[in-house]
Amino acid sequence: MRPLVHHITNYVTVNDCANVTLAIGAAPVMAEAPEEVAEMVGLADALVLNIGTLSSGQVEAMLLAGRAANARGIPVVLDPVGAGATHFRTTTALRLLDGLEIAVLKGNAGEIGTIAGNEARVRGVDSAGLAGDPADVCRRLASRLGCVVAMSGPVDIVSDGNRVALVENGCPMMGAVSGTGCMVASLTGAFAAVADDPFAAAVAALAAFGVSGERAAQEAHGPGSFRPGLFDALAGLEPAALGAGAGIRLE
Amino acid sequence: MRPLVHHITNYVTVNDCANVTLAIGAAPVMAEAPEEVAEMVGLADALVLNIGTLSSGQVEAMLLAGRAANARGIPVVLDPVGAGATHFRTTTALRLLDGLEIAVLKGNAGEIGTIAGNEARVRGVDSAGLAGDPADVCRRLASRLGCVVAMSGPVDIVSDGNRVALVENGCPMMGAVSGTGCMVASLTGAFAAVADDPFAAAVAALAAFGVSGERAAQEAHGPGSFRPGLFDALAGLEPAALGAGAGIRLE
Amino acid sequence: MRPLVHHITNYVTVNDCANVTLAIGAAPVMAEAPEEVAEMVGLADALVLNIGTLSSGQVEAMLLAGRAANARGIPVVLDPVGAGATHFRTTTALRLLDGLEIAVLKGNAGEIGTIAGNEARVRGVDSAGLAGDPADVCRRLASRLGCVVAMSGPVDIVSDGNRVALVENGCPMMGAVSGTGCMVASLTGAFAAVADDPFAAAVAALAAFGVSGERAAQEAHGPGSFRPGLFDALAGLEPAALGAGAGIRLE
Repeated sequence: MRPLVHHITNYVTVNDCANVTLAIGAAPVMAEAPEEVAEMVGLADALVLNIGTLSSGQVEAMLLAGRAANARGIPVVLDPVGAGATHFRTTTALRLLDGLEIAVLKGNAGEIGTIAGNEARVRGVDSAGLAGDPADVCRRLASRLGCVVAMSGPVDIVSDGNRVALVENGCPMMGAVSGTGCMVASLTGAFAAVADDPFAAAVAALAAFGVSGERAAQEAHGPGSFRPGLFDALAGLEPAALGAGAGIRLE
Repeated sequence: MRPLVHHITNYVTVNDCANVTLAIGAAPVMAEAPEEVAEMVGLADALVLNIGTLSSGQVEAMLLAGRAANARGIPVVLDPVGAGATHFRTTTALRLLDGLEIAVLKGNAGEIGTIAGNEARVRGVDSAGLAGDPADVCRRLASRLGCVVAMSGPVDIVSDGNRVALVENGCPMMGAVSGTGCMVASLTGAFAAVADDPFAAAVAALAAFGVSGERAAQEAHGPGSFRPGLFDALAGLEPAALGAGAGIRLE
Repeated sequence: MRPLVHHITNYVTVNDCANVTLAIGAAPVMAEAPEEVAEMVGLADALVLNIGTLSSGQVEAMLLAGRAANARGIPVVLDPVGAGATHFRTTTALRLLDGLEIAVLKGNAGEIGTIAGNEARVRGVDSAGLAGDPADVCRRLASRLGCVVAMSGPVDIVSDGNRVALVENGCPMMGAVSGTGCMVASLTGAFAAVADDPFAAAVAALAAFGVSGERAAQEAHGPGSFRPGLFDALAGLEPAALGAGAGIRLE
């Protein structure tokens, strides 16, 4: 049976999150009403929290769902979209990290840098820079938070505080389509739902997404046709695609 | 003039619902603010209620809109997404069925089985089984509720309590794309807006969707390219496609 | 650096708005929580307000964001989706026009006619007619409101109260896809973010969208394949495409 990935996410890219979850072989469910959120977590194999269009009600739902996920021992993935852009997003990201046991924190350089307390710059929901060596920022933040940190970028970086993996694949077209960061968080949730090691899950998600993006870009005529191609490529991904050639490098 | 189908629906697949409504030749409108929901129903030819990302405010909007639709005599289609997965969804589905005159109840086996009081299993928003003969469950539930029951699945079943129709078409790709169930509810609303017989409307919607899916699957390279193809096929559907070859069988 | 276009918009077409903003070379951000909306405007280069799935909370967020945008002197684009269909939409559109300095009011004939006080008819979110000469309605409304009025239709009309431009391009397929009106508002925001003259921004947005639609229609097999083609065409648009051949005519 497909692993079930419960999402509390933004309304901009939620459909892409659902379809990417299906494409990789898992099943998505979205629920955030306080009346049902903990009960829905009871059926799920992973929980993805994404603050892309945050509301105060959603924060409470995330805490309720996160505690239920922690109690059941299923992994929680946090995508702190736009942390650093506004105080509401930054403090919510920190509050979720403080109140919940997060398995994987996935963000871009600006978001991760903000949470690390570095002088990161975030503009809207796009990263605009990070002070310091990225791999070092990830490793130290992972160590401090006690979770896996996955930083997406031209070279993705994943660390659990000890190990550091670089994933060097993907293509510029990724940035021309809305929601690619959110989709990676959903994929991470799908992999974490079935993997014992959240570090491996994050690496696999980033590698799978990057390889699929490269394949889709070869056929695309622009961002419009790139997107369906990305879903096709993800759904057609063979396990060997995540081996040599996927651009994974352990530091 | 295109029939207007008012939706109160989930934010995951709402764009697909809008586009599928347009593709079949109707016009969608989405509105759920208590300030306007009854007034908007006053312009509509059918109302579709979908509980896929339910909130308490939305339940009240559905009741307001549903009563206005009943008062005007326009058909109401209910898609009880995830009934059986959480108490909130199950009780809301029952509350809507109790408080409103529903023309067509459209769900998967788990959702319909839950409402029928059978030992159905629902996981997230996907059906995971139904005890008892499906056609019999539909016929008896339709008879008890006094509405048409449409159960989607490998073979779709539609009953008004007397008649039973089976629709045997479609393709596995349907399950690889988010929102196909929601799209069928929107199509049912579009057909019900212009048909005198909601039983015929539900059968036509399921047949049209299945035939379109089969056509789209022939050209698709995966779920990503399947989806635009599905909209193309729906928009290009000729009336004869719903005749022989559409897989409709009256029991 | 890409101009940042802050949106407060509907949940039906929000993903299209995000992708169209990226396709034209700007960056989208969506935020509407009262906790952050003014702060997010502080990072933005334009603000787009779209009332397609209005709620009372969203109206307050629009006023907060709009005031912050006015204080910073960045342009505000208003898309009064469905004004004329319900009192809530009509009065909200008028309230936003009254309380904020709007740079561009973009709507269809029914919405613009409603705001102009003409006997316009709106059904759902689609225009169903306008009494009076459209160019004259636009020119007089622009003059009265002190903003640019852009009326989309088979021939688009833009006026700032003095100048009137007609944009005659596009294709019937536009109406077969959900969200084309919303996408034009997002494009207008993207152009207004970098143009000194909002009149020129609105004309450019309508021309770019129409030309892209014509190109996409040539390759499309229906509305499903038209949509990705539209994004591809927008992303590939060369500046010269907005010169002769774009169907722009100054009255």
